[in-house]
Amino acid sequence: MILTVTLNTALDITYRTAALTPHATNRVAEVTERPGGKGINVARVLAALGHESVVTGFVGGRTGDALRELLAAEGPGARAAHAAVSDAPATDAPVTDALVPIAGTTRRTIAVVDETTGDTTQLNEPGPTVTPAEWAAFLTSYEELAARADAVALCGSLPPGIHVGAYAELVRLARAAGRPVLLDTSGEPLSRGIAARPDLVKPNADELAQLTGSREPLRATRDARRRGGRSVVASLGAAGLLAATPDGSWLAAPPMAVRGNPTGAGDSAVAGLLSGLVERLPWPERLARAVALSAATVLAPAAGEFDREAYANLLPRVAVTEQSSQPEQESHAPRQHR
Amino acid sequence: MILTVTLNTALDITYRTAALTPHATNRVAEVTERPGGKGINVARVLAALGHESVVTGFVGGRTGDALRELLAAEGPGARAAHAAVSDAPATDAPVTDALVPIAGTTRRTIAVVDETTGDTTQLNEPGPTVTPAEWAAFLTSYEELAARADAVALCGSLPPGIHVGAYAELVRLARAAGRPVLLDTSGEPLSRGIAARPDLVKPNADELAQLTGSREPLRATRDARRRGGRSVVASLGAAGLLAATPDGSWLAAPPMAVRGNPTGAGDSAVAGLLSGLVERLPWPERLARAVALSAATVLAPAAGEFDREAYANLLPRVAVTEQSSQPEQESHAPRQHR
Repeated sequence: MILTVTLNTALDITYRTAALTPHATNRVAEVTERPGGKGINVARVLAALGHESVVTGFVGGRTGDALRELLAAEGPGARAAHAAVSDAPATDAPVTDALVPIAGTTRRTIAVVDETTGDTTQLNEPGPTVTPAEWAAFLTSYEELAARADAVALCGSLPPGIHVGAYAELVRLARAAGRPVLLDTSGEPLSRGIAARPDLVKPNADELAQLTGSREPLRATRDARRRGGRSVVASLGAAGLLAATPDGSWLAAPPMAVRGNPTGAGDSAVAGLLSGLVERLPWPERLARAVALSAATVLAPAAGEFDREAYANLLPRVAVTEQSSQPEQESHAPRQHR
Repeated sequence: MILTVTLNTALDITYRTAALTPHATNRVAEVTERPGGKGINVARVLAALGHESVVTGFVGGRTGDALRELLAAEGPGARAAHAAVSDAPATDAPVTDALVPIAGTTRRTIAVVDETTGDTTQLNEPGPTVTPAEWAAFLTSYEELAARADAVALCGSLPPGIHVGAYAELVRLARAAGRPVLLDTSGEPLSRGIAARPDLVKPNADELAQLTGSREPLRATRDARRRGGRSVVASLGAAGLLAATPDGSWLAAPPMAVRGNPTGAGDSAVAGLLSGLVERLPWPERLARAVALSAATVLAPAAGEFDREAYANLLPRVAVTEQSSQPEQESHAPRQHR
């Protein structure tokens, strides 16, 4: 079982409009809702890959009730209705809801898709404030769940009320339980969290630059390792994934530039990395899977889904190239000499 | 008791943002929710004027539950929290919820207020589809409520599934029960509804032009009377209200142009007209009240509320002038001679 943590879950609402006109009244043609937040998206992709997962984090209010109801409806039996066009046999594993109830109300996010331009305008509500008692209840549940997990993923932003070192605390608890832990967040929660030595961090180019001060990806990923990440996999958009690990560095690139909706591509990459970790795949295979999943997510018509057929076609064609060999010791040497 | 009908109720959500940037991710700073739909807004103002009201229409799903909960929380005891700044004694009367449950989900409307420009971008979900059985259940309840009402107001758009002659049917039922009935809608439901001879219609300038084909207000209001409206009160924005009635025609104008949020100004005017009808005020007094309430709504900081102090100040200063005397018979004469 893989445990994914989404402290700031959301009810993701998509509005389709003929065209979004600011400062006017716009009729919404179609409304869709689904459970959202990065860890929940990761769990959905893990399920499609046949990996059982448990989602935790906070949930509350009517929007929280709607989220849980929709999550339950996404189970293996209900999957067919959501699957991208494919005749591939269903391999879905269960996603178990272990969300912790809170007094506050789960936030909504609204994606307004302009059908004329294809562009999306996103409106994100602030999350509910989490009380110290609710955080304590979460920690108790988290420790119990992490102890049973093959891997733990900590995903997304922190809601109001949660201390900025929260991810550092969750990394330490997972490590104390001897469980591999992945961190996918940004800003100060990432800076603090990486110092607690997670097994894997997956920043995008902006998050990596904010963390390290460098926009040179190879230098920045190696710097992020020195800050505490055992392995660092940076997502570089169309260029693919750049990994710096104890076993070496690789660049994994998709066979072609793909056009579509990038929403959820990063979460699919996380699911690819986590599944590869649990299956003990060598790094090049993990990276190829993550890149193919990510590109197949961009290509899928629905945001956050991935196109299974595209995934199967892309997987053998991802180019993984080892980067200039720089053994662990050498890369650390300059710092030790300062 | 005054009965207000809102077939297409809504959960009105307001998002405040520093600035709305299309095709980008926008953080919402503040979220507020309230029960919405024209008839519900009218009832809220009637309550503030001391008139007991009953709201009916359709409600369903989680958004419908939220609407009912918020409506219950708006009762006389809870009013203080919502009142605009004023030391005026509370005169609130109860608003009773007689909404009819449906299987569909009540729509949301989202008003995104850009705090930099003060402009509002409105996103309106389509309403739920109402089934024939639900419409039949509504009619049974409506007949019973209308029979006990001092006046009936039919307000706003029709949700999917409701036949375009629905308001005509509701007008006829109210008239059969001997109850005065006001109609405030637009397009085909207005054309059909006015032919059923409501006591009062309150179109705005656009709705009136669409109904009659004329943009000349005095001519258009009189034309609307010939189409079946016993009295017609047209809202002309900053110019005030133009009334054509069996007792004469009047223009009621606010003492100055007011700047602010016009949301709900038309609903406040309807509440002024309804309360004046039930109190049997002469037309000039009804119109003065409706104009003062409407202007005080534009001036209030919260959309759809009215500023009680501004209302008290404006009321004696509304200028009501009788329009060129044209007795009923003469105005109809040209048509009879054709």
